[in-house]
Amino acid sequence: MFKKRHSIKEIEEGKFLSPKFDENGLIPVVTTDFKNGDLLMHGYMDYEALKKTIETKEAHYWSRSRKKIWHKGQVSGFVQKIKEIRIDDDQDSVWLSVDIGNGASCHVGYRSCFYRSIPLGKIKNEEELEMEFKEKEKTFDPKKIYKDGSNPTKL
Amino acid sequence: MFKKRHSIKEIEEGKFLSPKFDENGLIPVVTTDFKNGDLLMHGYMDYEALKKTIETKEAHYWSRSRKKIWHKGQVSGFVQKIKEIRIDDDQDSVWLSVDIGNGASCHVGYRSCFYRSIPLGKIKNEEELEMEFKEKEKTFDPKKIYKDGSNPTKL
Repeated sequence: MFKKRHSIKEIEEGKFLSPKFDENGLIPVVTTDFKNGDLLMHGYMDYEALKKTIETKEAHYWSRSRKKIWHKGQVSGFVQKIKEIRIDDDQDSVWLSVDIGNGASCHVGYRSCFYRSIPLGKIKNEEELEMEFKEKEKTFDPKKIYKDGSNPTKL
Repeated sequence: MFKKRHSIKEIEEGKFLSPKFDENGLIPVVTTDFKNGDLLMHGYMDYEALKKTIETKEAHYWSRSRKKIWHKGQVSGFVQKIKEIRIDDDQDSVWLSVDIGNGASCHVGYRSCFYRSIPLGKIKNEEELEMEFKEKEKTFDPKKIYKDGSNPTKL
């Protein structure tokens, strides 16, 4: 395991990796496109996924819906090559800067999972707050790629 | 409240905001600098914080350490002005693109909370995995700004 969390000063100002996994053994992960800083996805890692990501230089996550380690791109081919991994001040979240070439990172087919923008300002009707699609076209057809039809999105 | 989550198709492909808050009533939030895409921080919002952020166009979070809504910059003056808010495919995480001017977003004093980089490749000694500081100087002195001395970082 990584270095134990002994002191707040060490965690914040020290040089050793001491990640904090939550009560489920997970740490949140932010993944951005190294080319332009666009946010591609938000996911989670367990200890093994973090270690595999560091060592293989390809993003691994913990799939909460499938309850197993998930080598991103294993099915779709859209592997995320790691350009840099950073950790935050209290070491309870991870930032991956990745290269996905001309691929995509969203199981719905878009390049980024964050393809909709929320309008700003006073909300008139919360139940009908209309968002704007910022990606006009999908990068791939998920029906062709994910043949088993399972969907990680849950109600 | 926002639109109820009726169908996966609506959540993923629809235009209405239907955020999913977790068992603690929180949704994770990723905050990037609109100027260059740098990740500034990773936090959480409850329903009220999300609504206030949309309506006031300034970032509000839920502070898990203080257990209350937190208008970022209220103490430090480093308010995050919202340029855009996006939500992801299954609507369980939020992306804020913000303007912090020449300010900072990290309580330790750095511009970004993610000021340390993890070395890639085979790990020799997990307990002494040395990171590299990517920000060489702090943007502000936290001792001068946060006079009460409380620290959100926990072991």
